[in-house]
Amino acid sequence: MDNLKERLLNGEKRAAARLISIVENNEDVDQILLKDLYKNTGNAYIIGITGPPGAGKSTLTDKLVKSVRKTGASVGVIAIDPTSPFTGGAILGDRVRMSDLNTDDGVFIRSMGARGHLGGISEATGAAVDILDIFGCDYIFIETVGVGQSEVDIVKACDTTVLVSVPGLGDDIQAIKAGVMEIGDVFVINKADRDGAIKTKNEIAMMLELKEDRSWIPPVDMTIAANNEGIEGVLESIAKHKEYMLESGNGFKRRVENRKNSLMNLVKDRMTRVLLEKTTNGGMFEELAQKIVAKESDPYTATDLILGKLNLS
Amino acid sequence: MDNLKERLLNGEKRAAARLISIVENNEDVDQILLKDLYKNTGNAYIIGITGPPGAGKSTLTDKLVKSVRKTGASVGVIAIDPTSPFTGGAILGDRVRMSDLNTDDGVFIRSMGARGHLGGISEATGAAVDILDIFGCDYIFIETVGVGQSEVDIVKACDTTVLVSVPGLGDDIQAIKAGVMEIGDVFVINKADRDGAIKTKNEIAMMLELKEDRSWIPPVDMTIAANNEGIEGVLESIAKHKEYMLESGNGFKRRVENRKNSLMNLVKDRMTRVLLEKTTNGGMFEELAQKIVAKESDPYTATDLILGKLNLS
Repeated sequence: MDNLKERLLNGEKRAAARLISIVENNEDVDQILLKDLYKNTGNAYIIGITGPPGAGKSTLTDKLVKSVRKTGASVGVIAIDPTSPFTGGAILGDRVRMSDLNTDDGVFIRSMGARGHLGGISEATGAAVDILDIFGCDYIFIETVGVGQSEVDIVKACDTTVLVSVPGLGDDIQAIKAGVMEIGDVFVINKADRDGAIKTKNEIAMMLELKEDRSWIPPVDMTIAANNEGIEGVLESIAKHKEYMLESGNGFKRRVENRKNSLMNLVKDRMTRVLLEKTTNGGMFEELAQKIVAKESDPYTATDLILGKLNLS
Repeated sequence: MDNLKERLLNGEKRAAARLISIVENNEDVDQILLKDLYKNTGNAYIIGITGPPGAGKSTLTDKLVKSVRKTGASVGVIAIDPTSPFTGGAILGDRVRMSDLNTDDGVFIRSMGARGHLGGISEATGAAVDILDIFGCDYIFIETVGVGQSEVDIVKACDTTVLVSVPGLGDDIQAIKAGVMEIGDVFVINKADRDGAIKTKNEIAMMLELKEDRSWIPPVDMTIAANNEGIEGVLESIAKHKEYMLESGNGFKRRVENRKNSLMNLVKDRMTRVLLEKTTNGGMFEELAQKIVAKESDPYTATDLILGKLNLS
């Protein structure tokens, strides 16, 4: 492990890959691993790419990364695969499409699941971001597959979040609208050659005009990512947001907020581990659940019993 | 509260509504409320309706409920609104469409958020299901808005889960496939008058043929819910699954598994509450997060500090 750490600090790609795998599959190592390396983080700028399925997030990320690479900056890409029943298989196809980036030494691509990680996908992703940051990535893109709460939590943990939409999603656009102001720092209408692109743009822009905090009104960019159109505009919007966050002091505030959430997850994770240890690896839960269904107990009496084991109440 | 409990046991609709609101907005009451009422649960049959956005879940649920009502059985409908940025507003439109059910005394409709409930949407929904069960619903339908992990967790907690799909979702169907066998007990291709319906049906049926456990192969039904076509077929499939679960003993096993998961959530919820109390309502997290971003601490040292406060480690 010490050897891997050193190789990571030396910017060795394979060490980064290996360490992310270790973090992904084990719940304890991030602690041993990152505790003393943590001081080497904080240099990467983290960009979240999210939006509904079918919006073309992978293609957009692909083009954004290629464009950033022209400046010579090194880039990490983390694609979130929450391994939910609904999205379990989707990521593979997307990754294949992005595979020509794999031959670029300045790009590190990684799909993240959370199979072996008790703390779930958010925590594993957070550790992977720290590893890529230490590794030396100037920019880290986090791309989500779907729109689940855990994915929203992850992109909320970025410095700049890009919300991708497409024209003509109908009700789905309605659904996105409600939270538009909360999560997106930059908005992109992809597949902008489709009918209704201008209408969708205007609708989103109108919603954004209603924002209470007028210090940053998210720009709404149009792209046809598949044709590489509009990509520079998105990068300019990201750069503007980065500048705004730095100058306003909101960048620091957001990083504190992000670390706070992540710390909460780390603590809950550790608490859960203690919980499992003290309940014969969860066996007590099975036993009590049987009693509950047989109506020999109830969920609340059972909860008290378990908390008693932990000396917490 | 005692008065409300009595009115619930007497099958008063307004008492049920009031109690669900209380549970939804307060994290402690479900315990006080449901501890002694719990013995009155276990009579309702719980059906989950899930699938990707745009599959027509609301319309299908609407028609299923109307059809069940013809048998005289009373029905509860819980629509999950996880208040994610992506789905926050979607539910209202759906509910309006279903509003003619509201005038039926034998139907109880409710949208569930988890705004004030620390334990999150799963726990609030579980408590609401218990309340509707005690209230006297013969069937409870839980309909999700999207496909987030928390929604998957909820429908996994049902006696029978109906997975709704539509023809021609392309990649999205691929995405669903991967988890198809795990979550669905009954499959429905809605909007079956669209191109590709047979193809989609065959693809899903083929996937299901690969199931290791051959004791229940989920049927794949075709519906055009908007025209009320195919609804009886879905209800027959649900009835067959119910019978299978009863006869095989898997129904009991699933309920034990469901209660086990719910118990785990209850315990974690209570642990979180203790955590907040012992960290000056989370203030310690803010303080430590600032130090982490300033690199005066790291996430793992901070975690140890907080766990020390709890006498857990």
